[in-house]
Amino acid sequence: MSGSIRLYVTAPLSAGSEVQTTAQQAHYLGTVMRRRAGDPLALFNGRDGEWLARIEAIRRNHASLIVDRRLRGQAPEPDLWLVFALLKRDATDLVVQKATELGAAAIRPVITTRTNAARVNLARLAAIAIEAAEQSERLTVPELHQPQPLDALLASWPTGRRMIIAVERTHAPQIAPLQGPAALLVGPEGGFDPAELETLRAHPFVTACSLGPRILRADTACIAGLALLQAR
Amino acid sequence: MSGSIRLYVTAPLSAGSEVQTTAQQAHYLGTVMRRRAGDPLALFNGRDGEWLARIEAIRRNHASLIVDRRLRGQAPEPDLWLVFALLKRDATDLVVQKATELGAAAIRPVITTRTNAARVNLARLAAIAIEAAEQSERLTVPELHQPQPLDALLASWPTGRRMIIAVERTHAPQIAPLQGPAALLVGPEGGFDPAELETLRAHPFVTACSLGPRILRADTACIAGLALLQAR
Repeated sequence: MSGSIRLYVTAPLSAGSEVQTTAQQAHYLGTVMRRRAGDPLALFNGRDGEWLARIEAIRRNHASLIVDRRLRGQAPEPDLWLVFALLKRDATDLVVQKATELGAAAIRPVITTRTNAARVNLARLAAIAIEAAEQSERLTVPELHQPQPLDALLASWPTGRRMIIAVERTHAPQIAPLQGPAALLVGPEGGFDPAELETLRAHPFVTACSLGPRILRADTACIAGLALLQAR
Repeated sequence: MSGSIRLYVTAPLSAGSEVQTTAQQAHYLGTVMRRRAGDPLALFNGRDGEWLARIEAIRRNHASLIVDRRLRGQAPEPDLWLVFALLKRDATDLVVQKATELGAAAIRPVITTRTNAARVNLARLAAIAIEAAEQSERLTVPELHQPQPLDALLASWPTGRRMIIAVERTHAPQIAPLQGPAALLVGPEGGFDPAELETLRAHPFVTACSLGPRILRADTACIAGLALLQAR
């Protein structure tokens, strides 16, 4: 991270356009980062690339920004989903932050047979993902989904997207990069229920893979798996 | 994780030998895990492999264990160090836990030009590493070192050990597995000071590598880097 500021906004970005910040963004710019009118920052919205902008006016709970010129065009990003058995709050927060840094296009918590959690605060997770996207210099924010039963997700699985399951104590090959739309599926801390794993493996789009000889916590498996799936 | 218990002990392990637990281990066995005399568990000490044992007697703050038979021999593990610019407490805790799961042989915090932390509670970090080793089915616990200045570590760098530096915004090749003794070096959140990076790169044992197109937090870089260095 450098001292430069990047903000995610929802407004369209083009040369000369004006963008209004949220109250939180104005607080961050003015109070936390001590920025003043005239100071530069970068903006992205997930569609129009990254733009240089300047603060036109700033008050305690509102700032106006003027967009200057494009710094980077919107480039293709990995079409990689993270599907994970919902974890406790702190571990879920960690997974959302790290998956965003590691470029996941969508983050989809699921409820498996041995999952003990069922709810998330999607607004809080979105704030974590936006902050991680801003800091990691991503040009997008991952899609965040409400938790759903694993069965339901499998029943509506899109044609052409591979699913790589991280399985423990297996002789399966280690997770390695692959072409095209993909998803990493990480099970709960207790592992998949055997019948559930069998159902999963019967799907033609599913491949079971290893994350190495040790037993990883679920949050570690999400992070290591996403890194390995994008190794070059 | 399964419901089985693994404990790290320092005593020698051989068939028929008796092992005395610490008070914390007895509390964990009896109060947390509700184990009783006669119940099985696995033991490892980093030298003699993994052994099946049974609880001979258990009280609130002490338990005696009898070692039965060897489950696994002591196998070679990756000779991979993690060297990282010391982070704040929570991030350092996370790095120690995850680096242990990912098989790091030694964990060496260093003080760089832009490092803002200087001290660690080595006993607390050791407890985190031991718990992570127990849960990850490792047969060793990583060596934990006190923080030292990066310069001092470089001055005493062992012959034959490569150092891979994770560098941001570079065209260097991505981190990939390598043979022989190695170390991953991850800099502070603000990145290495330019002069410091130049000094580092002048060492013949140093190779600068990339962790991909995004800017990762330092803790994420430690985890992703260790995973990639051990990709098969």
